[in-house]
Amino acid sequence: MIMGMDGYLGWPLAMHLAERGHDVSGLDNFSRRKNVEEVGSQSATPIPSINRRLRVYEKAKGKRLRFYEGDLTETNFTDSAIQKEKPDCVVHLGEIPSAPYSMIDVRHCNYTQINNIIGTNNILFALKKHAPRCHLLKLGTMGEYGTPNIDIPEGFFEVEYRGRKDILPFPRQPGSWYHLSKVHDTHNIMFACKIWDLRSTDVMQGVVHGVVTDEMVEDGLLTRFDFDEAFGTALNRFCAQVVIGHELTPYGKGGQTRGYISLRDSVECMTLATENPPEEGEYRVFNQFDETYAVNELADHVVKVAGELGLEGRIWTVENPRIEREEHYYNPDREKLLMLGFKPLFNLDTELRLTIPKLIQYRDRIEEKKSCIMPKIKWRG
Amino acid sequence: MIMGMDGYLGWPLAMHLAERGHDVSGLDNFSRRKNVEEVGSQSATPIPSINRRLRVYEKAKGKRLRFYEGDLTETNFTDSAIQKEKPDCVVHLGEIPSAPYSMIDVRHCNYTQINNIIGTNNILFALKKHAPRCHLLKLGTMGEYGTPNIDIPEGFFEVEYRGRKDILPFPRQPGSWYHLSKVHDTHNIMFACKIWDLRSTDVMQGVVHGVVTDEMVEDGLLTRFDFDEAFGTALNRFCAQVVIGHELTPYGKGGQTRGYISLRDSVECMTLATENPPEEGEYRVFNQFDETYAVNELADHVVKVAGELGLEGRIWTVENPRIEREEHYYNPDREKLLMLGFKPLFNLDTELRLTIPKLIQYRDRIEEKKSCIMPKIKWRG
Repeated sequence: MIMGMDGYLGWPLAMHLAERGHDVSGLDNFSRRKNVEEVGSQSATPIPSINRRLRVYEKAKGKRLRFYEGDLTETNFTDSAIQKEKPDCVVHLGEIPSAPYSMIDVRHCNYTQINNIIGTNNILFALKKHAPRCHLLKLGTMGEYGTPNIDIPEGFFEVEYRGRKDILPFPRQPGSWYHLSKVHDTHNIMFACKIWDLRSTDVMQGVVHGVVTDEMVEDGLLTRFDFDEAFGTALNRFCAQVVIGHELTPYGKGGQTRGYISLRDSVECMTLATENPPEEGEYRVFNQFDETYAVNELADHVVKVAGELGLEGRIWTVENPRIEREEHYYNPDREKLLMLGFKPLFNLDTELRLTIPKLIQYRDRIEEKKSCIMPKIKWRG
Repeated sequence: MIMGMDGYLGWPLAMHLAERGHDVSGLDNFSRRKNVEEVGSQSATPIPSINRRLRVYEKAKGKRLRFYEGDLTETNFTDSAIQKEKPDCVVHLGEIPSAPYSMIDVRHCNYTQINNIIGTNNILFALKKHAPRCHLLKLGTMGEYGTPNIDIPEGFFEVEYRGRKDILPFPRQPGSWYHLSKVHDTHNIMFACKIWDLRSTDVMQGVVHGVVTDEMVEDGLLTRFDFDEAFGTALNRFCAQVVIGHELTPYGKGGQTRGYISLRDSVECMTLATENPPEEGEYRVFNQFDETYAVNELADHVVKVAGELGLEGRIWTVENPRIEREEHYYNPDREKLLMLGFKPLFNLDTELRLTIPKLIQYRDRIEEKKSCIMPKIKWRG
């Protein structure tokens, strides 16, 4: 059961799991569509209505995905949907995913935190009641950790302090109201597993890039590609910029380093986690990324791959609207998924060679909303 | 400006700060009164309406306290009140403070988390806008830390991990949806200080005990004393039980150890923090407690002091409705307030000698609601 099935990750995952023979259901409140529209933008790839998506998929693959329209923050809706489905696994992608969007003002901060926290709480309570053995695969973000000056383990670490030892949750230092909401989720889920013996995988995911998966046999099955300052990642913005002949605009010194994973590898990781659930009462954390890059390196890769495709890319640094370290140590672990058998197949360049041509195809849709790319939302307000 | 001025700590603090010559305002939505009524109980001490309290205080002391009725979760209300007052210091006590109440069901979990998180967020945004140099003195709880097997520093600790070092927030392992809400606040406030240069003292307070302060020159000025399973602490419940001749009922093995501080010392600590604000952009954490006791020790102290007053106390262990370690290491630091000049004056026995006679005076009000003392809310649901 995929919460947020209409979203960037939810839709490709739904198709992939169905392809693997799983019985897939999902829900969505279409907040991503509405929120991107609110900031004045649109997905570069055209996204049909969910009903049309489901029909196109059924026609192409002969498989049905069950869908519920509704809002996870409505306790009764979430409770009923989970009661009806009694899922073996809930993949919770049904959250507002944007740092800049959460930084617009107090209203967007509160909306993001309430949406994400209460949605997750409602799932936890519904699972306890109707499906206590269900595996909750929850998507968090590597951004929960921030950029500490030490290695980042997968969720927990052994601490020696004043001559005594304990295994403790790794401290979180998130960098936006959105990232904070994911940290709040993490603490809430950890607690629910402890008191109710629920089982959960809390995925600290890196930035996902790419727009095409094997299941997208026609363009009606494409997932969304956002490039606006709020819902588009730095990499997405660079890709969109190079396609319309705009300078690539890294923020500040460009040394901000993060973990990255291709859309196809991300879907594969979530599939692996789904098919290898934790034990009853187990709360485990996966750091889900494949490579790390500094923002400047991302820009260089986009320029290089765009060049292969005959596009000229130039880089133009802009003032950083965020408050973050622009040069820092970054060395997160990524062992647990590899131990489950994850073999990353698609590195940044491979994925860019698929993404940029797809964006060229929809260049007009980017051109139409190009005023949404440059940053206007500032962390200092 | 005291958020939650009608509450257990807010009311005595308001009077004490006014006595010290501060210009005091405050607000409240009376949720504590309503929530205690909702669980079927009442304060052992009778609490007049806020208007009557303010009048009695003005008559007794010749000082006025400004009061605003409203809800911190209403963004416009919080914004307007802070805009009007432009306070030098906000003492934020305006949160739902009960672990068991938050554990009743999904509705109470969400209500507690939304109330506490959104109220705090609204204060942060209003301070940024109208009073960016204001000191936010925020009441958290020692319960944010849980019971790790190592010493508990004041908020941050130096970590050596795989040969590298950093100073990081101390990991939080809270034990209820309520305690989680305070952890969420902590992360949100730390972030606001970082990006907006706000200044805050985040107080990890121990359990506060006692009901009388020097300013309560008549009973119309008393603060509340809750003894029900949700809003009464273990110590309050023991005091209420011994007064009505009921067995004292520690939960489980009774080895659960926590920090404790008397009401008068707590008010003194908050006054000290108010009068010694942090630097601009500084986020500091105080562990605010005086002594540590295991639950069994609390019961023994109550039996002893009650005995001095001619009451016979017996102890009757009941099944623990909570999920918590019942025997554990517990060694939190408490240096920062001592360095500011805090001298604890009232230990547990001293305070009990003042509290129990006051409860004897209001024995009938406890008797009337005695069915609210024994635990019905269970962590496992």
